Amino acid sequence: MTRIAICAPGKPLEREHADAVLAIADEFEAVELRFHEQCFARHGHFAGDDEARLAALLDCANDPAVDAVWFAHGGYGSNRIAAEAVSQMGAAAQGKPFLGYSDTGYLLAALYRAGVGRPVHGPMVADVRREGGGAAVRRALDWLSGGGEGLEGALDGRPTAALNLMTLAMLCGTDLMPDLAGHVVMVEEVSEHLYAVDRLFFHISQHLRGIAGLRLGRISEVPENDRPFGASAEEIAQYWCATADIPYLGLADIGHDADNKIVPFGLKIVPFGLAGRAARS
Amino acid sequence: MTRIAICAPGKPLEREHADAVLAIADEFEAVELRFHEQCFARHGHFAGDDEARLAALLDCANDPAVDAVWFAHGGYGSNRIAAEAVSQMGAAAQGKPFLGYSDTGYLLAALYRAGVGRPVHGPMVADVRREGGGAAVRRALDWLSGGGEGLEGALDGRPTAALNLMTLAMLCGTDLMPDLAGHVVMVEEVSEHLYAVDRLFFHISQHLRGIAGLRLGRISEVPENDRPFGASAEEIAQYWCATADIPYLGLADIGHDADNKIVPFGLKIVPFGLAGRAARS
Repeated sequence: MTRIAICAPGKPLEREHADAVLAIADEFEAVELRFHEQCFARHGHFAGDDEARLAALLDCANDPAVDAVWFAHGGYGSNRIAAEAVSQMGAAAQGKPFLGYSDTGYLLAALYRAGVGRPVHGPMVADVRREGGGAAVRRALDWLSGGGEGLEGALDGRPTAALNLMTLAMLCGTDLMPDLAGHVVMVEEVSEHLYAVDRLFFHISQHLRGIAGLRLGRISEVPENDRPFGASAEEIAQYWCATADIPYLGLADIGHDADNKIVPFGLKIVPFGLAGRAARS
Repeated sequence: MTRIAICAPGKPLEREHADAVLAIADEFEAVELRFHEQCFARHGHFAGDDEARLAALLDCANDPAVDAVWFAHGGYGSNRIAAEAVSQMGAAAQGKPFLGYSDTGYLLAALYRAGVGRPVHGPMVADVRREGGGAAVRRALDWLSGGGEGLEGALDGRPTAALNLMTLAMLCGTDLMPDLAGHVVMVEEVSEHLYAVDRLFFHISQHLRGIAGLRLGRISEVPENDRPFGASAEEIAQYWCATADIPYLGLADIGHDADNKIVPFGLKIVPFGLAGRAARS
């Protein structure tokens, strides 16, 4: 039995999305989902105030009867509690997967930096609302219960990290940022103009000197601008990688969509089925 | 006679805005405006490609017959040429004011870091298009020709820098970023959600430890969100300043509007009329 605790470090979850994921989880006999009531709390922009979101995350991380922590939703806000959360995680959090992406990347990064738990980029509960979202949820549940079929296909034996581009940009130089030297770094973005993508690459490329290389996930839902930018998202990535002497390694199968694949932080490639027990590299 | 050269390091200028500013400049007998033709070039998102924008900026900066460089417009793009531009500026650029804000803050920062010229935050040519924009243009022309009435009112004798919040966030940790230890830092923003403002403050507050204090300019045209953020822009600034042990000093009279005041980088307060000749602190 894999007992998965769910909390919302940023935006609240809708009950109907929790119910839809519970129905899918019935297909997984060895999985038990535990939704923390904080998932549905509301406080301004957030699923409860900082204290409530921090307490819920610690409830999930520090409960020895919980095998994995799954983030309900992104939104914004996990950066406000990440440093404090990681500093208060105890023995029960060690070895425990923490699965999410987008804004929860602040937590993945902070965990990875601190060497706490096993941070993993991949689908969240609220992805059930997307077209084809059931597949994303099944990919997450399969991986959390020991499967390995949802892994991103380009993982190549080098330590890897996957982050939203804006999240990574805001992490750079802060006390949440892990040392990614020697890592393959995958980035993705949603709902940003291409000029903003270019601006973010200007920033991260200078901070990422020394990484093994960069892979570009999907840059989706780019808003229309009053004039074309003049370069594609991949050309932007290639330009800034070249400027900062970072090997550009091609595309990554991650993004704000139902196809978003699983990228364990620091994972070295392992046979399918062993992914859930891979050691941190 | 103050000869002011104008170029566009990011977005192109409209001819009608140049004409409107030329008409206003007729009021200033001792001012001559020289619009570089590059102001009106178009290349994708930009006023000409990187090479064209770089060349025009260097034309203005390195011309000994030019007394000041005034930026036509913000937009996006000055970060792409700033490092190269500053490295190619010669003796004629020394002591010369460079006036702009918003995206051209990348250049102001790079100049200040390199000790080249006198970077100054203040109105640009394209501000003439705003409601009350004539006053903004007159403020800039007055300052460039030796007046001091447009100075931001809170300047208090400590070295100061003023930057757009997003621009500052993207500068942090890069090779364009000046050392702002001991400085009063003023920030302003436009067209960003309050959650994005909070996110940017998370980032900059960690990078600005050691500054003398922060002042908050106007956070304007905040888009409506599907839910209220739960804190005002000033509460956000106060929160993150407290978290990073940065003194919060109150509001600053800068912003993306016609009231945007003049903030010479590093300026110590000087009597009116001497602002144009103030030494860098």
